[in-house]
Amino acid sequence: MTGTYSPDLIRDIVATAHALADAARPETLRHFRQGIGVDDKTGDGVGFDPVTEADRAAERAMRAILAQRRPADAILGEEYGAKSGTSGLTWVLDPIDGTRAYIAGTPTWGVLISVRDEHGPIFGVIDQPYIGERFEGGFGIARLDGPLGESRLATCASRALPEAIVMTTFPEIGSPAEQAGFEAVSRKARLTRYGMDCYAYALVALGQVDLVIEAGLNSYDICAPIAVIEAAGGVVTNWQGGPAHEGGRVIAAANAGIHAEALELLRQTG
Amino acid sequence: MTGTYSPDLIRDIVATAHALADAARPETLRHFRQGIGVDDKTGDGVGFDPVTEADRAAERAMRAILAQRRPADAILGEEYGAKSGTSGLTWVLDPIDGTRAYIAGTPTWGVLISVRDEHGPIFGVIDQPYIGERFEGGFGIARLDGPLGESRLATCASRALPEAIVMTTFPEIGSPAEQAGFEAVSRKARLTRYGMDCYAYALVALGQVDLVIEAGLNSYDICAPIAVIEAAGGVVTNWQGGPAHEGGRVIAAANAGIHAEALELLRQTG
Repeated sequence: MTGTYSPDLIRDIVATAHALADAARPETLRHFRQGIGVDDKTGDGVGFDPVTEADRAAERAMRAILAQRRPADAILGEEYGAKSGTSGLTWVLDPIDGTRAYIAGTPTWGVLISVRDEHGPIFGVIDQPYIGERFEGGFGIARLDGPLGESRLATCASRALPEAIVMTTFPEIGSPAEQAGFEAVSRKARLTRYGMDCYAYALVALGQVDLVIEAGLNSYDICAPIAVIEAAGGVVTNWQGGPAHEGGRVIAAANAGIHAEALELLRQTG
Repeated sequence: MTGTYSPDLIRDIVATAHALADAARPETLRHFRQGIGVDDKTGDGVGFDPVTEADRAAERAMRAILAQRRPADAILGEEYGAKSGTSGLTWVLDPIDGTRAYIAGTPTWGVLISVRDEHGPIFGVIDQPYIGERFEGGFGIARLDGPLGESRLATCASRALPEAIVMTTFPEIGSPAEQAGFEAVSRKARLTRYGMDCYAYALVALGQVDLVIEAGLNSYDICAPIAVIEAAGGVVTNWQGGPAHEGGRVIAAANAGIHAEALELLRQTG
């Protein structure tokens, strides 16, 4: 997918992605843990909603950089929607993935930044501003820069389902049929953990978690994780084995073997 | 509870607690995210179990410091059990609380260090080595030292149950009766989150989370959270409203009002 990009363009995309993540950090941290743990999306115009404030401010900061550095690229952002472009590249932005984690003060939300072309994501960043942790993947890069320094990202190549760690955001994932599908996989796994939002995908790229299974995702929830996990050696598809970058039902797997095992169970979901 | 301690003794307890937390950090981080995400407590003597290794090494490092600095104090440790003392003080140590989080690579496990006398915990530390985050409480101290610097810990004084954020470690908390009790509270709350282990208690002290409800705890799981949350203005009891420092069923609340609301629902649990 990335063969058609020149080294100069690749360098510019990567540097721009880091510039966006750098710009989003202070905006997301400004309201994090400031004591107002309420998500007031009532729209009554009265209550101050720190998550929405932080979400919007971070996306504005990122869009301002794109307007300057990459004006011909399109943008799809969670808060400010779509802007068309002429380059064939689209920046897909979710300034705060995991708003419930953000509200609760948990450092497992993240800033999701990715670039896609007509085939899918080509580069992605999962950034956790509070921990100071940045996962990036694409163009041959698969790297974590965090509190303990830099390291290479690589999924776990060897574990099968009975040894696997499975994650999803909610115990009440999706519809009853989707929940049954998740549970069919979860029952055969070694350990199931909840509540990690985009951080779960980062843990797959790190080689710690073997499967993340979710439903009801948007494109901006999953494009960056796809780029990071694929760069680290993993597989991300929808529950039918097709492309996942438009969202919906998604399975992220550490390797092709466990992906096939889980997909076989999920495919039976109506 | 703390009126009988001299300023010199208090200074020594606090400094010793920090020395323990400092000593535990490298031991717990040595095996964290080292690619072996398997908890092999099979006891067959063959498999290498990184969590148990890290758990034991961290507790040994802490016990070595106590042997030198506080030889007359008793110790209760998760890995190496009880050591008697003559001072009336007991150090209660859980070198890695949240072993499942540790295995999965999630930075929500913690090192729990506390000191109790015959009445209960008088000082406690919840330390998260990967993030570099230390929550401490007792003797008039209620403080977080983390990646963004130092700040005072204070629970949220004002939210009632319908606005509350509730946490527990597992969706499948305890027995069916205990689960029903938890769900009676969870249903009336604004938001329920799972999977944070001891980090959930730190979030209560931070004013972000309003209730943590758990069952089947050990004394070493809860002594440090009690000290930190009480120092920050919260209330921690068992599900009958009595002392929680021996473990069992525990409720940690941001304020007396929400504690009473939740306790009323939990008390009906058989």
